[in-house]
Amino acid sequence: MKRNPKSAWQNEVELEIPFHDLDPLNICWHGHYVRYFEIARSALLRTFDYDYLEMRDSGYAWPVVDLQIRYIRPLHFRQRIVIQTYLMEWENRLIFEYIVRDAESKERLTRGRTTQVAVDIETGEMCLISPPVLKEKLGVK
Amino acid sequence: MKRNPKSAWQNEVELEIPFHDLDPLNICWHGHYVRYFEIARSALLRTFDYDYLEMRDSGYAWPVVDLQIRYIRPLHFRQRIVIQTYLMEWENRLIFEYIVRDAESKERLTRGRTTQVAVDIETGEMCLISPPVLKEKLGVK
Amino acid sequence: MKRNPKSAWQNEVELEIPFHDLDPLNICWHGHYVRYFEIARSALLRTFDYDYLEMRDSGYAWPVVDLQIRYIRPLHFRQRIVIQTYLMEWENRLIFEYIVRDAESKERLTRGRTTQVAVDIETGEMCLISPPVLKEKLGVK
Amino acid sequence: MKRNPKSAWQNEVELEIPFHDLDPLNICWHGHYVRYFEIARSALLRTFDYDYLEMRDSGYAWPVVDLQIRYIRPLHFRQRIVIQTYLMEWENRLIFEYIVRDAESKERLTRGRTTQVAVDIETGEMCLISPPVLKEKLGVK
Repeated sequence: MKRNPKSAWQNEVELEIPFHDLDPLNICWHGHYVRYFEIARSALLRTFDYDYLEMRDSGYAWPVVDLQIRYIRPLHFRQRIVIQTYLMEWENRLIFEYIVRDAESKERLTRGRTTQVAVDIETGEMCLISPPVLKEKLGVK
Repeated sequence: MKRNPKSAWQNEVELEIPFHDLDPLNICWHGHYVRYFEIARSALLRTFDYDYLEMRDSGYAWPVVDLQIRYIRPLHFRQRIVIQTYLMEWENRLIFEYIVRDAESKERLTRGRTTQVAVDIETGEMCLISPPVLKEKLGVK
Repeated sequence: MKRNPKSAWQNEVELEIPFHDLDPLNICWHGHYVRYFEIARSALLRTFDYDYLEMRDSGYAWPVVDLQIRYIRPLHFRQRIVIQTYLMEWENRLIFEYIVRDAESKERLTRGRTTQVAVDIETGEMCLISPPVLKEKLGVK
Repeated sequence: MKRNPKSAWQNEVELEIPFHDLDPLNICWHGHYVRYFEIARSALLRTFDYDYLEMRDSGYAWPVVDLQIRYIRPLHFRQRIVIQTYLMEWENRLIFEYIVRDAESKERLTRGRTTQVAVDIETGEMCLISPPVLKEKLGVK
């Protein structure tokens, strides 16, 4: 996990656009990007041992409460893309930002952002502040 | 629920093919039919009060262990289809058969078949005979 | 198509959450909403005869360039929802807003917004102003 | 591409089960396997330069006309799987068989089979014999 000015927690995953994600215009249907972002986020969460399974074991669910995607250029069949994911905020909620680039040209193709909040699985209550377990996982005070 | 020679338990649901189910050839991608069959099966299971929620409450999961689809004619955007679903076997496992027809012409477009077996949720063991709760739901002895 | 203060072009569609849209937390996975919005938008576009097929025949594709979803409450299995769709802007681009409500209680569950721009299919160029065909379809001057 | 008794044309791809493919029972929903098979088949088709794009350029579409899946054991979150794909028949149609194994234990988890037939894109007619281009691609006489 590299550290850079944008965020101390970031990651890169590489994916390829499969046939079943294409629409009749021969480009990736815009709804599939949500899956790509989740794969990228899941990989980043795993670097600090707090992916879905660890979230659940810690007693918290982290539902996505906000999603934003800005489509800059279309994605095509077999295109290899790199998703750069940045953890932008964690004190009260988890905010991730995503940049999708062509794996070869590095051209920026899409930008995205997701927001998640902690929900106590037992009580069903939303947490206004991220639970201590997140700080521990991130190794911050 | 009509009774006919093919099966005492059968049902019909009508669906429409949405844009996001199309592939670059402008026809419905073959994998989406699995969703259509599930919607149809879910509707039939509900007629005897044994859909997913009641399965779970009865202590059994019913995973699909076999799937077969025969594609006869392609499905197109906005096409309205009717799925006729038949419960073909229930004593040891649940076998459903599906016929997809054009809602207007009634032409047969697809045939399918799914097999499910009961798994005891507590022990994780597969049941070789369908559990009594299914008989009760079906009202058979 | 009813006229109201929010938009002259609006529509309502009713959907039900199927099993295959649920995630391990027993709620609808957040990415599936993009499909629901498309079904709703497609229905509204059809009221003025400018759905995907008519777009294509008019020589324009209308890719989604921006997507925003605000998840307020989760959706559950078998829950019936109503999606209210409003055409908010059309002069330079198509902006739709969506409100997802529980079909019974009318409680607001989700808000969404999509932006599409016209692309000339022949030249591949993005239009800075919506092409005349859209005005004709909408019956505005 | 290894040669073995089962088929001269075979391949292996490795995949990981993502969160959004799980259902409420915490296992991979049975319909997603169709995507996995397509990714595996696409990789094998590429080894002899006849994936979707080359099919289209050769004037033929190859719709799937039959699908069979036998689910042996469930797939879980983050599980790494290997899909072994075998081209079993090509003279009159393309038949692929798939074996899904756990990437580590090599345990067999799923078996599948798809059948595709050539359709002349211009005339829309189904070919009873595979077109010569397939033989050329496979390097057989």
